[in-house]
Amino acid sequence: MFQILRDGRPRTRSELAEQMGLARSTVTLRIEALMELGLVGFVNDAVSTGGRPSSRIALKAGSKVVLGVDIGASHLQVAVTDLTGHILQQSARSIEITQGPDVVLQAVVELGSKLLIDSGRVLTDLLAIGIGVPGPVEHRTGRPINPPIMPGWNGYDVPGYLQRHFHVPVLVDNDVNIMALGERNVAWPKVDNLVFVKVATGIGAGIVSSGMLQRGADGVAGDIGHIRVHGGTGVPCHCGNQDCLEAVASGPAVASKLRSLGLEASTGEDVVRLVGEGSTGAIHAVRQAGRDVGEVLSACVSLINPSVIVIGGSMALTGEQFIAGIREMVYSRTIPLATQHLQIVQSSSGPNAGVLGASMLAIHHAMSPHRIDAMVLGLS
Amino acid sequence: MFQILRDGRPRTRSELAEQMGLARSTVTLRIEALMELGLVGFVNDAVSTGGRPSSRIALKAGSKVVLGVDIGASHLQVAVTDLTGHILQQSARSIEITQGPDVVLQAVVELGSKLLIDSGRVLTDLLAIGIGVPGPVEHRTGRPINPPIMPGWNGYDVPGYLQRHFHVPVLVDNDVNIMALGERNVAWPKVDNLVFVKVATGIGAGIVSSGMLQRGADGVAGDIGHIRVHGGTGVPCHCGNQDCLEAVASGPAVASKLRSLGLEASTGEDVVRLVGEGSTGAIHAVRQAGRDVGEVLSACVSLINPSVIVIGGSMALTGEQFIAGIREMVYSRTIPLATQHLQIVQSSSGPNAGVLGASMLAIHHAMSPHRIDAMVLGLS
Repeated sequence: MFQILRDGRPRTRSELAEQMGLARSTVTLRIEALMELGLVGFVNDAVSTGGRPSSRIALKAGSKVVLGVDIGASHLQVAVTDLTGHILQQSARSIEITQGPDVVLQAVVELGSKLLIDSGRVLTDLLAIGIGVPGPVEHRTGRPINPPIMPGWNGYDVPGYLQRHFHVPVLVDNDVNIMALGERNVAWPKVDNLVFVKVATGIGAGIVSSGMLQRGADGVAGDIGHIRVHGGTGVPCHCGNQDCLEAVASGPAVASKLRSLGLEASTGEDVVRLVGEGSTGAIHAVRQAGRDVGEVLSACVSLINPSVIVIGGSMALTGEQFIAGIREMVYSRTIPLATQHLQIVQSSSGPNAGVLGASMLAIHHAMSPHRIDAMVLGLS
Repeated sequence: MFQILRDGRPRTRSELAEQMGLARSTVTLRIEALMELGLVGFVNDAVSTGGRPSSRIALKAGSKVVLGVDIGASHLQVAVTDLTGHILQQSARSIEITQGPDVVLQAVVELGSKLLIDSGRVLTDLLAIGIGVPGPVEHRTGRPINPPIMPGWNGYDVPGYLQRHFHVPVLVDNDVNIMALGERNVAWPKVDNLVFVKVATGIGAGIVSSGMLQRGADGVAGDIGHIRVHGGTGVPCHCGNQDCLEAVASGPAVASKLRSLGLEASTGEDVVRLVGEGSTGAIHAVRQAGRDVGEVLSACVSLINPSVIVIGGSMALTGEQFIAGIREMVYSRTIPLATQHLQIVQSSSGPNAGVLGASMLAIHHAMSPHRIDAMVLGLS
């Protein structure tokens, strides 16, 4: 129901029942539960219907809020959004994830509490919290599992810590997964098969298939950084293998190539700067990195058959040469049937993709049919 | 609801509501609709409850039947099954798919009608029909789209043809997709992330993620036959590229290698025979084909993170050397987190995987919550 109402357009019960493919009686029960909670309401449009009382229902976007939290390797961004994912207040600060969960989550509590006050809200207005972290997560429990760059976080009860302060459901997911949700919500709300690829210090993908985020059996679906690429020269990867995508096409990998050409570069940001300055060496290296990413994505296209691939992360900021390298390989290494409607584009949700996706994760959970039916049960 | 009841075990309304995560009122409406249609009923277990009338509900597996149809390049197999997918009657015959849809679908009508009679059923006992075909299908309409080995079938209204005779919903899908459904139902009913790989004349995969068959944006998800493998020697593929998986590891590709060694082989079946006879050349070639398939599946594991990969098709019958080659590459080319719970096994559903999967496709559709709610609507 929320999926349909979140565009803000009011609808009648019959319209909702038809669009949801459900019985009117089922829809009515859910609407009653949502009304009881103040999350939806009748629209005041007596004028347009000639004085008859309205029977059209709409989401009350501002009735409740959620917190979207994006925890990176060295940053923390928190936003308060309404029920359509519109950002009401947001804030960011530098913090090292290596300081461990107690320090970082305490900062989340402080920032989140302050933003709630700044947006004129109280704790009981909060419906749920969504969080992205830079590592694999057991989605069911919200615990990070063997996250390589998050010492001290393995198995940590992230929801438990935050629930002691906020008393609402807490959903935790991998940062690339929540960026995929954020990008989809902002730019591709009607696309059911989308892959978001982050190319930065690491390389990973968030996969939306059949309209659902796909996490796989162990929560590591989309972990494409260690797929081997062709034509590698035996570049060692930190995982123990050679010629992994991450070892040849990540920001630091391309920077390392540029250093061997005598250019000054150590991060993806340096690569972006050199491309901006028109360095031929950098442009060539970025094009090749695009081809390497494209080779892996050609397998992704054959397997998953998405209609949109979004490229994000710092390396995406190098611009058209990078995307062109990706397209070159994807279109040359796949069957036409899989690419006839495929678009490969740069991310448009920008630095807010993380918090927006995290807020969507929270909203989807809070407004899911199962949760709503649980409310129906509670009220009946 | 069907997903829960199909194991045959009776359950109370409360048990159903809890397992479905739905309100009891919603569950009651659905049960009433299914009872009205005779698909579920109260269990006669007054003895076990001490004379009190039973309130436990179970699927009436034999109340209705479906047809499962597996159309191959040169064969047709049809089965009548009950609502748990148990085969009541089945039959197969040789027919060339190149004879076109009118000839092949007429044979489906004849075989299906005969099997209904043989199982003592009438047309009104039939709930739905599921069909697998060896090519890409637009699932929504049931029309094959540019299927390479099915001349005359492009855009053909398969459901329309069969509905003129059977007057029930007709679901059409790619044959590897339905084999994935069949294998899951027979051997892995509790696994939500499973990949079925068919290695025969062609190579393709059926992908179940989050418990759902994934078809992708254009219905060609799992089309892995044209992913490029490493270490190829420029083997030309019929798709126009080189070193595609299908060009190096399919039955005919391995047979062709064996011919160059002076062995007599032209199909996957010949390869199976030579391996059975202990030919060292054949065993080596099969092991390498396994490695090539495994290389592609390592990308699949990184992307999709399944917990089970099932290997089927004629090449799977070559046995342990083939599977060992696959495992060798998958475990060496992926991160441990993605493979810690992964099983790679030979198909166990055998030649019936197709009709069983097709019958599941039909049952799932006929018993889906949307359909049941539509019945609720019709009855209210």
